[in-house]
Amino acid sequence: MDKEQVMDLNALRKITYGMFVVASKKGDKINGQIANTVFQVSAEPPLIAISINKLNLTHEYISESKVFSAAVLSEDTQMTYIGLFGFKSGRDTDKFKASKYKTGVTGVPIALDFTIAYFECEVIGSYDAGTHTIFVGKAVGSEILDDTKEPMTYAYYHEVKKGFSPKTAPTYIPKT
Amino acid sequence: MDKEQVMDLNALRKITYGMFVVASKKGDKINGQIANTVFQVSAEPPLIAISINKLNLTHEYISESKVFSAAVLSEDTQMTYIGLFGFKSGRDTDKFKASKYKTGVTGVPIALDFTIAYFECEVIGSYDAGTHTIFVGKAVGSEILDDTKEPMTYAYYHEVKKGFSPKTAPTYIPKT
Repeated sequence: MDKEQVMDLNALRKITYGMFVVASKKGDKINGQIANTVFQVSAEPPLIAISINKLNLTHEYISESKVFSAAVLSEDTQMTYIGLFGFKSGRDTDKFKASKYKTGVTGVPIALDFTIAYFECEVIGSYDAGTHTIFVGKAVGSEILDDTKEPMTYAYYHEVKKGFSPKTAPTYIPKT
Repeated sequence: MDKEQVMDLNALRKITYGMFVVASKKGDKINGQIANTVFQVSAEPPLIAISINKLNLTHEYISESKVFSAAVLSEDTQMTYIGLFGFKSGRDTDKFKASKYKTGVTGVPIALDFTIAYFECEVIGSYDAGTHTIFVGKAVGSEILDDTKEPMTYAYYHEVKKGFSPKTAPTYIPKT
């Protein structure tokens, strides 16, 4: 007897994520965006995978420069900051004009305003996941900036901060 | 002037993850393991990526059957359960002998004891990340089983439950 297929995509909302600013560069241009799909995939060497929408400017920058940074955002990150990096495009807005960053060893910008830790990576490979690309990067720099604050989780952003996700998010699920 | 390289791998501990039982099959044999690196990489179609150590039996099963399930564990998951699935090998122990599961549409076991939601996937591709493989699967079944409980986070497991990570975890960082 065949099993009955059950498909409730809301189950995917139960996956836990953090909140990050992933940033990159192209020539002397820099940009960054909010991402929640950032995770370590192996320990030796330390490899980090991120999933970025092909429509995003940061995707173009990472594809070209082969370097990116990921800044771990604290729980007290202001919603206006997430609005700037998550809901505006770098094609229209210079996101780093009014926000603090430093330049890493790879030349990428590293967002600083609400960052408790960051790492920067050199891309060693990628995987085409349709609407998104999984970039796999080797960590070449990493630092804890504030060990007293908790990282913001994606659930905290949604439940406590009442935040939304843009349609370009890998975890976007239309309301049914 | 060259930037000074800073490399504190403890920064990677600030990445947020959930806790899952990833399971698969090989012929009529079934096995599962604890994993924290499970994330959605695109929404249409719903693609899930997992990072699994090549040494693990579950890696062998997924490589062969090209199907896997991921069960989202609740905060109240017993440590003995995590001990069974996270610190024992399916080569020595029949992990599903004394724990509840059901068989999904793909034929994989789906762990049930502390599961608040699950999804099962057909592998559509993989990425060789050295010690680990990133398997990318298309969700073909998913269900919420308990919407009243919170998913266990990796941080909760470490900080509240005082849990450890095995050396084969993608996020293992040796104490310095």
